[in-house]
Amino acid sequence: MITLYGFPNSRSLRAVWVLEELGVEYDYRHVDMMAGEGQGEAHLARHPDGKVPVLEEGELTLFESTAICRYLAERHGEPDGLLPASIEGRARVDQWMSFVVSELEQPLWTQAKHKFALPQEQRVPAVLPTAAWEFQRALGAVQRRFDGEGWLAGDRFSVADVLLAHTLSWGVQFKHRLPEALNDYRKRCMSRPALARAIERDKPVAETR
Amino acid sequence: MITLYGFPNSRSLRAVWVLEELGVEYDYRHVDMMAGEGQGEAHLARHPDGKVPVLEEGELTLFESTAICRYLAERHGEPDGLLPASIEGRARVDQWMSFVVSELEQPLWTQAKHKFALPQEQRVPAVLPTAAWEFQRALGAVQRRFDGEGWLAGDRFSVADVLLAHTLSWGVQFKHRLPEALNDYRKRCMSRPALARAIERDKPVAETR
Repeated sequence: MITLYGFPNSRSLRAVWVLEELGVEYDYRHVDMMAGEGQGEAHLARHPDGKVPVLEEGELTLFESTAICRYLAERHGEPDGLLPASIEGRARVDQWMSFVVSELEQPLWTQAKHKFALPQEQRVPAVLPTAAWEFQRALGAVQRRFDGEGWLAGDRFSVADVLLAHTLSWGVQFKHRLPEALNDYRKRCMSRPALARAIERDKPVAETR
Repeated sequence: MITLYGFPNSRSLRAVWVLEELGVEYDYRHVDMMAGEGQGEAHLARHPDGKVPVLEEGELTLFESTAICRYLAERHGEPDGLLPASIEGRARVDQWMSFVVSELEQPLWTQAKHKFALPQEQRVPAVLPTAAWEFQRALGAVQRRFDGEGWLAGDRFSVADVLLAHTLSWGVQFKHRLPEALNDYRKRCMSRPALARAIERDKPVAETR
């Protein structure tokens, strides 16, 4: 049985999205990050920094959204499904997932940290314009290779698209302007039925709404 | 034939290290980042943001150090060599590589960017103390799972150790204090003969010294 630990509107949506694309059964448990549950003993035993998502399956406890998405696609997906079958094809997916997380997402995370996520005394709002500049720069690098036609890494929708579309949407939420073609690509990814189901599962449970 | 594009004292050392661990033949080409060669047309055709490392092998052009290290280990390594053979074992390696790059390395990169790597007008030195605090926090998270005994992801030296040891060394270079056990682990990794050979290859060519 698969258990996914997550929190609404966080990186855990990436993992739920992949689970829904794969159509596998899973138990989704909300970790109440607002109430400090992430830093509680039980969750720190799952994630050494108290974050989400965390995946449990059998003996495996896994953190980091890219590793979870890739594992799920490899373990539960068809060959050439969400992950290419060839070593080279997988390497291209890894390359883009790493680029998205370390170049495109980091400026957004810097914005989030210095707006609200860091302890008050660690926030330096003066860094926000630089973060915005870095996001646009990373977007420019994406555009040098990917114009929004087709899919990011190969000729099928892959976990690299999950990462890019989710991160672009985060950018839109943070009021960044996207080039039209990349925004169209983002909307095309975000209109997938699996994501609609994922968003439904991702919602806070009725009791806490 | 494998060609690796790199620059001394950069993330490209990770890829050279893995190449030397694997004992495969490769051509190492220096991209003169100080002279702006990274942003030249030829290198931008290899890397959309003009960075290193970049790996070329046959039809494949690959960027992002984690993707390159993983690809090399999978394509050229023994099963259960630098990369575990099982899907679960590989997922643990992916998890730690992602954690190292996105949590442990990013504060160091933030320090580098705001000290020298960003254009002058984008630097915000006020963010440096927060970056130092974030590095120590990420180090604390590593320690919750890994005390420096044995290896990071499984019972063998893997590409995850290449990433962690290289990043810890970057931390030492930036005058961060490491817990003694993690520093001993770092030294144990850094004393591998393959790394000594990699550092030799990584040096600037004689003409440009």
